[in-house]
Order: sequence, then structure tokens, then C-alpha cells
Amino acid sequence: MHRNSFDVIRIPTNGPGDVSGLMALIDSGALEPSSILAVLGKTEGNGGVNDFTREYAVAALCNVLSSRLKLAPREVEARIAFVMSGGTEGVLSPHITVFTRSPAPEGVGENPSEKRLSVGVAHTRDFLPEEIGRDAQIEETTKAVEAAMRDASIDAVSDVHFVQIKCPLLTSERVQDAGARGRTTVTASGYASMGYSRGASAIGVAKALGEIGAEVGEDQVLKDWTPYSSVASCSAGIELMHNVVILIGNSRLSSSPFTIGHAVMRDAIDLPAVMRALESVGLSGIDAQSQSRLVNVLAKAEASPDGAIRGLRHTMLEDSDINATRHARAAVGGLIAGVSGTGAVYVSGGAEHQGPAGGGPVAVIARA
Amino acid sequence: MHRNSFDVIRIPTNGPGDVSGLMALIDSGALEPSSILAVLGKTEGNGGVNDFTREYAVAALCNVLSSRLKLAPREVEARIAFVMSGGTEGVLSPHITVFTRSPAPEGVGENPSEKRLSVGVAHTRDFLPEEIGRDAQIEETTKAVEAAMRDASIDAVSDVHFVQIKCPLLTSERVQDAGARGRTTVTASGYASMGYSRGASAIGVAKALGEIGAEVGEDQVLKDWTPYSSVASCSAGIELMHNVVILIGNSRLSSSPFTIGHAVMRDAIDLPAVMRALESVGLSGIDAQSQSRLVNVLAKAEASPDGAIRGLRHTMLEDSDINATRHARAAVGGLIAGVSGTGAVYVSGGAEHQGPAGGGPVAVIARA
Amino acid sequence: MHRNSFDVIRIPTNGPGDVSGLMALIDSGALEPSSILAVLGKTEGNGGVNDFTREYAVAALCNVLSSRLKLAPREVEARIAFVMSGGTEGVLSPHITVFTRSPAPEGVGENPSEKRLSVGVAHTRDFLPEEIGRDAQIEETTKAVEAAMRDASIDAVSDVHFVQIKCPLLTSERVQDAGARGRTTVTASGYASMGYSRGASAIGVAKALGEIGAEVGEDQVLKDWTPYSSVASCSAGIELMHNVVILIGNSRLSSSPFTIGHAVMRDAIDLPAVMRALESVGLSGIDAQSQSRLVNVLAKAEASPDGAIRGLRHTMLEDSDINATRHARAAVGGLIAGVSGTGAVYVSGGAEHQGPAGGGPVAVIARA
Amino acid sequence: MHRNSFDVIRIPTNGPGDVSGLMALIDSGALEPSSILAVLGKTEGNGGVNDFTREYAVAALCNVLSSRLKLAPREVEARIAFVMSGGTEGVLSPHITVFTRSPAPEGVGENPSEKRLSVGVAHTRDFLPEEIGRDAQIEETTKAVEAAMRDASIDAVSDVHFVQIKCPLLTSERVQDAGARGRTTVTASGYASMGYSRGASAIGVAKALGEIGAEVGEDQVLKDWTPYSSVASCSAGIELMHNVVILIGNSRLSSSPFTIGHAVMRDAIDLPAVMRALESVGLSGIDAQSQSRLVNVLAKAEASPDGAIRGLRHTMLEDSDINATRHARAAVGGLIAGVSGTGAVYVSGGAEHQGPAGGGPVAVIARA
Repeated sequence: MHRNSFDVIRIPTNGPGDVSGLMALIDSGALEPSSILAVLGKTEGNGGVNDFTREYAVAALCNVLSSRLKLAPREVEARIAFVMSGGTEGVLSPHITVFTRSPAPEGVGENPSEKRLSVGVAHTRDFLPEEIGRDAQIEETTKAVEAAMRDASIDAVSDVHFVQIKCPLLTSERVQDAGARGRTTVTASGYASMGYSRGASAIGVAKALGEIGAEVGEDQVLKDWTPYSSVASCSAGIELMHNVVILIGNSRLSSSPFTIGHAVMRDAIDLPAVMRALESVGLSGIDAQSQSRLVNVLAKAEASPDGAIRGLRHTMLEDSDINATRHARAAVGGLIAGVSGTGAVYVSGGAEHQGPAGGGPVAVIARA
Repeated sequence: MHRNSFDVIRIPTNGPGDVSGLMALIDSGALEPSSILAVLGKTEGNGGVNDFTREYAVAALCNVLSSRLKLAPREVEARIAFVMSGGTEGVLSPHITVFTRSPAPEGVGENPSEKRLSVGVAHTRDFLPEEIGRDAQIEETTKAVEAAMRDASIDAVSDVHFVQIKCPLLTSERVQDAGARGRTTVTASGYASMGYSRGASAIGVAKALGEIGAEVGEDQVLKDWTPYSSVASCSAGIELMHNVVILIGNSRLSSSPFTIGHAVMRDAIDLPAVMRALESVGLSGIDAQSQSRLVNVLAKAEASPDGAIRGLRHTMLEDSDINATRHARAAVGGLIAGVSGTGAVYVSGGAEHQGPAGGGPVAVIARA
Repeated sequence: MHRNSFDVIRIPTNGPGDVSGLMALIDSGALEPSSILAVLGKTEGNGGVNDFTREYAVAALCNVLSSRLKLAPREVEARIAFVMSGGTEGVLSPHITVFTRSPAPEGVGENPSEKRLSVGVAHTRDFLPEEIGRDAQIEETTKAVEAAMRDASIDAVSDVHFVQIKCPLLTSERVQDAGARGRTTVTASGYASMGYSRGASAIGVAKALGEIGAEVGEDQVLKDWTPYSSVASCSAGIELMHNVVILIGNSRLSSSPFTIGHAVMRDAIDLPAVMRALESVGLSGIDAQSQSRLVNVLAKAEASPDGAIRGLRHTMLEDSDINATRHARAAVGGLIAGVSGTGAVYVSGGAEHQGPAGGGPVAVIARA
Repeated sequence: MHRNSFDVIRIPTNGPGDVSGLMALIDSGALEPSSILAVLGKTEGNGGVNDFTREYAVAALCNVLSSRLKLAPREVEARIAFVMSGGTEGVLSPHITVFTRSPAPEGVGENPSEKRLSVGVAHTRDFLPEEIGRDAQIEETTKAVEAAMRDASIDAVSDVHFVQIKCPLLTSERVQDAGARGRTTVTASGYASMGYSRGASAIGVAKALGEIGAEVGEDQVLKDWTPYSSVASCSAGIELMHNVVILIGNSRLSSSPFTIGHAVMRDAIDLPAVMRALESVGLSGIDAQSQSRLVNVLAKAEASPDGAIRGLRHTMLEDSDINATRHARAAVGGLIAGVSGTGAVYVSGGAEHQGPAGGGPVAVIARA
């Protein structure tokens, strides 16, 4: 069987259009551009409908990689899976995490008893506006997750620790487009559509990984919070109409120096879950030594839909000045940054069906 | 010497005008209204210049206590020290904390070897708009803190663990008023004036407690971040023109069932400091048993003025959509709530000269 | 037949809790508190779910009128119809407009050929959370509008020029409450519920005034923009669970010195409609002489739901930082203030089924 | 003397990165890319410090023009003057206005008795952070305006009707940079620095055009509102460290089919001034015929610094949720769009020393 090596590099950015850190690594030879498989980023927009920092960051990366890869910018975007999560509220620090894949040299890192970090990527077809948040999006996502597992050489669902999805949202124009064809979208609100798209995508992940049964479908999306995935992380963006899947787990066929593990936060203040996620890869929070081995924490945050955390009222859902996703990222980001000792963590908002209602998955990548 | 007993009761609220929890306690006999010394609250406004939830909450409390205390609402406000800190971003939960003082019965709780929670209150005179953020505010605050220590029967500054100040801010009208008298205010911006007022007040606390020398004055306010108080917590509000001081510490002359301790967060993600604050009163974070003895955590949060935390850029100061104080409260609130197991903690924004730049004091009140 | 006299007084306010202007008028004898029928106000909150300036303003007015009317604050609120519209974006200036009604002295102002301003008030019963935005709210509103016409001594629907409705919204708690009883609310979002409540109320007005047929019902609310009322103005607030109707028109049985007229803005930049509204009461915009006769302009504003105005894209619906209602109030407020020469106009947001999609009613009250 | 022809083309955009409208014109031959002198755009960001839609729009335009002009993107940016004004609040519609200059064919449009639209461009040197808002910025701007007049072949200052300046702002990093060199910047706040930069630039324009005396300097900036320019329009952006000047007026040496005129709004609701600006180029507001000849309206908006408009309080400066510049753009945009019949007008925020306090210049470009 063929073995791959995976590298994970976290690079701080000075703005959504900043590619200088990435270019420095490429120019120094530390990073081979053709090995780049995926880029997960946190950009400093509002994370909402009109967050253009996401598409700007992707455009900047595609432009600069275009000359290095001898590809048109559009081809770069098709080749590398870019997922930019908008919103670095509070202590969160803008950065990108670059995942590379390259064939492992013969005999290197062959230790069949140990599984190491592996990444797989897959795409769905483009969706029509009226398919967003509905069964079509669920089913296509399920297929894409299965494809991504194969791409990552991961057989067991228990070895999957984080499934990042980039999914589309609705705009006035897209709602109109559906209407012009006699179709109704799941919602007319752009902001609300982000939740439906994330929710349906997460349900699709959960089905692929056997976390829920085949009977769950669009009727449960944003209505019944029982079905969820413990490893799905979905971000909606205005810049695409299909789902991109980046699946991260551990595989015997990987010779990466890294490993990944995860836990599930049951609510937004679940410190013990964050601790368990660290421990799952051999780290300990509140410990500077541990923190030096940490590469990144990947987590989802949301305002609990019942308006309370452990019986006490929160005000995130009633705030007409700041969207609940921004509140939740700031709070969970503060907690995870405190435990990790760094604000350059990937905390993303809107955890519908990603972890239990009000909670969310938290995965940790560390040097093994 | 005369001994006092102090009670500390945390009451969740359903809105800034909700007084039902307080009234239920009074009606049940659990709380004697005439013993109320101070009320510290978190209200769900934006915490900025136009946060009217603070004055609304105070008005509602004064109105309802008016009949019970046989005083006009205005007299209630003069008698009880009300400090409402606006902003329950993220997981923070609106609540009030009521401090009562009553003479301890002869012989009860007399244990001269043990110090227990004690509270003192004092007021400055009203300030002119041009005095805000300047030496006049510093000096009057220093005097008021000294008076509050005496009121709390605390002799040693090391027994002071939290000094809450409520201070005024500038509005367009107040700036105009100063201008009409030929005076210039420290800033023309209402939002910026909140920082100056908090900063000068904190410098006043630090001088009173001997944390800094007499030579520090208005020239350092918001300019030189070296001088700070480790226990000051200042909130600016539109509803007053003077400073109110609520000083909390431990005293041999108190027979309270509670105790208070504190630590200083050196930055916004200083989890070990939060742990130390808990340990200072015998609690341990991440421990449900401990959490049941916790009454409240009182902390200040701010965006580090140099734009970075542990060398990584944050974006709080560049965000023109959400003020930095809201970001900081959400993030630090997330961390403290995670450790405390509850969102009903008092995390207040704008920590200028309250703890080191980017950090802030964190105090814990617990059942002894 | 009995004749009434109606007065309309516009009073600037210094904050949501400011009652000094009203009290000065009462203390000077210019305003008899027992004659107050209704108060329409613009308060400086965000106009959204967590806009507490509305309930604060009402509480402050009820408290201060309580002693003058020898009624408990709650009884004042039941006797006088208070409608506070949150949001004074842009050039809009916080103020209240007080409507009084008193019996006209025998023989005074009897001019049966001329109709003058008349006001009627009515209330619906309290709604259950699941009734909001649905047929129950529509039908009860229709009945209340008919009652308010009778109260105003107005027979012809063509004499009705403005129907202000105050209607409830959903909170997390109310949604939970419905859920606990096995009921589903029209939406789970507090902000979205404001639109449903306003829309259903406006449909109720349109039915009462014969503007649309009896076949229109809840299925059209926020879905089919064809049915609308040309005179409805609905504001949702957290502080009530029923609809309050304040109907303003002209009546032969009024001896008021004022008159009212209206026009309909077909979109948010319909300057000619504003001009026509002014002309309907004999005024001319851009004319200082006219402006001195103007008492107030009452208008509704909204972001056109198709995302465009006269074929050009607007960005109000895609803005995740500022709600569309705030954008619309600011823009339409700017236009109307320009024509009126004053920012103290009543421009309220969220014009669902109040005027055509993207437009809204604009009424003018002037000295006859 | 050499004559030039100038074209002005307004192009709607679908997002900050949308270059499709411009490319369609180039591909159809209607627009020769090498003739592009300047691009003024309205992008849909927040117009504040972290508004990345401005630099994204410029990057997208430079990238796409790069291949057509056979220049590197950086060279395109140096050759064409791009000014993106962030913020399309309310009814404002995102668009770009392209100004082209090409030599007029011999004998074409020679009518020495008539002046037509002419555009000149100039740049200052880069500023150090500590020079922003101070005399260095004022003086360099004055020189650049004089150079731009020569470039536009305009001799008389009375023929200058709009001077658009793009100027830098401060970030935490830039403030730190100055501090590291022992220098103090005019403010430490990024948002506040935008005002200083705009104000100093406007003072520089006013000096160049003889609107104020040579004695006015940095001490007046944002302190004394008396000195102002009637034609300056300044926008601050994070993406540059120097000032770009685009000067628009009428010249005998232009054979453009367009003309420009202006008026000055004395406050934010000065409808008659908008009317006068239209009349200065032969148009009439509220007249569809006129509106078809209109190319664009260029205006500045601001919240009056004394907190009131015609004696009535506004709340723009006290709003801690929405910056005053956004409020002002929305309101003035609503008024101008109403008169112009279109939301695709260039209304820019922050009019410090650009028109009288609370007002601003309003220029109109029309087909002659």
C-alpha cells in the first residue's frame, strides 16, 4: 500500500489579503507549493453574509500560488481545498493552517502499529439555491464524506476526528433566482440560510459516519437538535455553491509527524471537554511544555438554541446588534485560547447539528 | 469594636427592568431591604455610551425598593451603591449581586484569627466634565477609597481584594457645557471618555492602596501603562457625574460566611491566574464540588493596547463594528465561565490601569 | 352628537427615561394629564429584540404620570396607549408625540363642512406565542381597528390616514413556552418574529379598511407582498403580548386645530410621495413657512425585499453587522427630515405589508 | 494648447471583487483601458478601520487590468488613481465611477467659450505614522492639489468643484512603529485617526484653493471647525500611506460631454443645497427627465459634532453599536438618492473640515 506524509503548518496573517508568511515558507524551501492539499483559515470579517474577507483571502492565495503552480487562479482554487472561516472575535488571531500531502519515501515512518494524521478532500456538485438546507445537500455531503475517507486512507469511522465542510449560503439574488424558476428556498434570509446550510451539511456528515440513522433528513434540520455529528465543522460562505469536504483523522498509511484527536463540548463552557481533547493527543492544558507541541485546536461554537447555559439565561440570540455566531466564537475562543495558551486557534461559529445543541466538536492537532 | 455581618446574594434577572428575583427574596424574609449596602449588576446593554440598560436597571430597583424603605427613589439611590456594568456578551448571564451589611449579634462569629468578607462604600463629589480623566478625578477617588476602607473596617491594604468604581463619562452635551465655560475636556468622544474616566479612577485606587507612588498623575492616564492597580475595577456610566466606590476585602471585624481573594491576569488568556484566584479562597476550578461554594467571580477584561496577545495579533482594536470592550468581555467571560462552571459572573470591560495592559484583576467570592 | 377636541404636542427628549419636557408642560398647565389618550415616541435604542429603551420610556412615563393621575403605574399603562418605536438612526431625533382628547365646549369649532384630526384607540386580547404572525393576530387586529374607528367617530375608511399598531414579538422563552405546550411558533428567531408580527397586524388593518379582501390570511404574511395597507404602521416590542391600535384620521365630530393626510411611498427614495403627503394637508416641502405649520410626519421604512431599488442593488439585507430595519430608518429618515426641515419625525422600521414592498405609508399632521 | 476629452462611466457592482461590468465595457470596445485615469468607487464594507472591501476592490481591479495594460498589478495601482469609499448604508448602491482621459482629436469639441469636465491627478509622498493628521500631511496635500489643478488644465480655483483625497489611517502596528522611533501619533485609536487624516487633508485642499489662510495648521484640525473646504472629499483607507488627489472641475481645454458643479450642504438635512447643486449643472431634482442626464452625485456626510441638527439632538455620536460615519452616510444618502432618483451615488462619510461642521460639499456631474 502507498503511504503519504502529511505536514500541518500554522501561519499568522496580517490581514485577509496577506500572503507574505506563506510565500516566505515557499521561498525558503520549507513548503513545496505543489504539495498543498488544503488551507483552513480564520479571517477577520464578521463571519456573516457580507463577510468578504473570506473570498478576498482565497483570491489572494490563488493569485499568488498561480505563478508557483503554473495554473490559472481558478485552477488553483479547484485543486486546493480552501476553507476560510470568518470571525476572529475576542482573543482569536487571524491565521491560516496549511495541510500538505506528499508521497512518503520508501521505508520512512513505517510503523504499522501507529496511526498518524491523514487528510482527505472531496467536493459535491453545485447546488441550486432551493437545495440548500435540504435533502439534496444532505445526501451529496454524505457521498463526499465517504469519498474523502477513501482519499485519506481511513477505513474506520472512529479514526475520523474532524470533518470540515465549506458550504454555500443564500443571497437575495439566489432567492430570486429560485423564485423565478417557481421554487421556494428554505428561507429568504441570507443570515438564516447559513444555519440551514451548515445544519444540513452536518447531518450529511453524521450519516456518512454512522452517527445517526438513514431516516434523519431535512425535516430535522434546525428543528430537532437530537441528531448531530461529533466531528463535523461547517462554515457557510458566499463564494461557492457546492460543498467542500476536508476530512482529518489518523491512518496507518500516514507517516505524518502529527496526530489528531477530539472530544465534544456539551455546552459553550465545557472546559473539561477541551481538556479531554488535549489529553487525547497526549497534551495537558495549562502547561507550557504541552502548548509547544500543540499545532492547532479546531472547534465549533454556538449559542445554545434554548437561550440558556446550565439553566442560566444568555442573551446571544436576542442581541440585534451582534449576531449570535460572533458572540459564541468570542466566548468559546476565549476558553480554548486560555487552555491552549494561544489565540491562533480555529474556532468557527454556527454549530447546528455539529455537536449537541449549544455545544460542539473540539479537535486537537499535535506533534506526535 | 463593633462587628458586622455581610451577606452576598447572586440573583439572575430576566431583563434590565426585572426586579422579581429581588422582591421574592424580600417578600420571603430572606433579604431585609434596609440591610442592602450595594448592588453590583451585569445588564445586557452594549456597555457603551448609549447603554441605557444600566440606568433603567437602577431606576427599576430604586422604584421597587422605594416603598419598602419608605424613601423616595432618589433617596434609595443615594443610600445604596448601585453599580451596573453593561454588556453580557457571549456566555455571560445577566444578574445582580446584592451585598448586605447588618450588625452582628453579640458573640456570633467572633473568631479574631479569621478574616471574613467585608464591604465599604464611599462617594466622591460630582465632577465637572473637564475634570473627568484628570487629576481631580484621581485625587478624589484616592480619598474615597480611603474612606471606603475605613467603612469596611479594613486596615491593611493587603486585605483589599476588589475595589469597584462607578464613574461618569462625557456626552456631546457635557463636552459642549465645558466648552461654553472655556474649558476643554480630555476628549470629545463619548466612547473614548469612558476609558479616560476608568483609567483615572484606577490610578486613584492604586494611589490609595500604595500600589504606585504619589508622582503618578493625569499625564500617565491612557499613555503609560506601567502604573496600575491589581484590584481596581471601573465602569463608566452616563447616569452619574461622581465616582462611587465599593470596596471589598476581608476583615477581622466581619462575621460574614464569605471570603474573598484575588489574582491578576497578565493577559486575556491567563487561565493560571483564574485558577490562582479560585485557589486563594480554597476552591479549585474544573471541579463541580468547588463550583457549588462559589458565589461570584469579579473580573476586568480589556483588549491589549498593543494589538497582540503573546505575540499574536488580535483584531479587537481595529473592529469598527464591535467595540473592543465587547470583544474583551466576551472572550474573558468565556474563559472565566468555563473555569467557574457558570455564566453568571461579573466580567466588566475596559481595564485601563486595572491590572497590567491587556490583563486585569480577577477576584473570587466564596462561601468560607 | 358629541364633539371632541384633539391636541397633538411634539416633545423632544434627552434620553429614553427623560420625562422633563412632558412634566414641564403639565406643570405649566399647558397639558392636562387626564386628557392624554396616546403617546407615540421615537426612542434611541436599536429597534430590535433587545431594545429596552422602549419599555424604559414607557415605565418612566407611567411612573411620573402615576402621581398626577392618581393611578398605579400599571393602570396608567392600561389607560393611555403608549407606542415607542425604537431607532433614531441618522438624523432622526428622539421625541414623543402626545395626543390628547377632551370634550369640545358647546358651540366651539362646530363646522360640519370641515373634518379635523381625530384619534381612536383599541386593544386586542393577549396572544399566545404561537398566534403571533398568524390568523388569530390578523383577525383580532381587524376587530380592534373597527373599534378604534368608532372610538374616533370616523365612519368612512377614506378618512383614516394612519393606523399605528404596537404588537408583540417572540423571545427564546416564549418560543420555549409554545413548544412546552406542543405548539410551534411561526419562527424561532426573535428578530424574524418582529417582521411576522408587524406583517400580520398590517394585514389585519388592511382587511378592516377594505383595502384587501377577506380571503387574505396568514399564508400571505411575509410571502406574498401584494396585499398591503396604505395607512398601517406596526412596531413590535418585547413588552406586551397583545396589539394596541391608535387610529388617526379626520372627523366632522372633531374640533381639533389639526388635520392629517397621507400618501404612499412606492420605494424608499420616493421623494414625490413625501411631497404629496405634505401637500395633502396644504403644506409644501422645502419651504420654511410650511415647515412651521408641520407637527409631525409619521412614516414606515423598509429595505425592499427583492434586494434592489429601481433596479439597483442595495446591501441592507446582506449586512450582518447592522439590521436592515436600522438601515431603512436611517435612509428614509434622512429623506423625510430633509423635506420636513427637522429630524424629530416619526420614521419607524419594518414595513411588511405596510405600503408596497420596499415602500411605506407617509402621513403628515399639520396645523389646519 | 493641447485639448483632452474626458469620459465618466458609472458601473454597478455585484460585490467588492466584481469586475465584470468594467470588463464587459472593455471587451465591447466602449472603454479603452489605457485611457483610465481614475476610479471612484463605493464598496459595501463598514467604511471603518477594518473595511477590507476597499483594498479587495482595488486588488481585483488591478489584477484584471494588469493583463489588459501589460503591467504588473502594482504598476496598475501606481498608474490609475483608485479611491474606494467604504459604506453603502441604507439605499446606497455599490458601484464604481470610471474617469478616462484621452487626447481630443484636432478640432473636435473646440468651443473656447464653454468649459467642460476635466480631471487631474497627483500624489503626495508616503507619510510616517506620526505625520498623519499634522502639518506634514497638510502641506504635502496643498502641493499635490496644485499639481492636480495643472494636470487638469484648470487655472481658476472657482473652476474646481470636487477634490477627492484618499488618505491613510493608523493601525495598532503603525502606532507602535512610531512609538518604537520615539514618536507619538496624533491618536492611538485607528478609528479616530481616520478623522484626523481626513481633516488634515481637507485643510490642505482649502489652503491650495485659497479658501483659508496660510496661518491655519494642525492645531485647528478637529478642534476649530471654522476653517473648511467647500469642495474637499477625503476618505481614509488602511491600504496606503500617502495621499492621492483626484481633482475634478471644468476647463476650456476639455472637450468632455460632461460638466460638473457643486453646492455646500450646511447640515445633513439641507435639501435646498442638494437642489442648488443639481441646478448648477442645469438639472432639476424630482424630475425624471433631469435624472436621466445625471451621471453621479459626489457628496460628503457627517454627524454634526455638536450633537444637534437645527437645535434638535441627534444620537449618532453616542451610538456605541454603529459608528457615526455609517449613520451619516445612510441619512444623507437617503436624501440625495431621493432627489437624484437613484441609490448609485457617491456619498462618503467623515466630512471633517469638508464643508461646515455637520454639513459637506455636494457635487453633481451631468451630461452637458
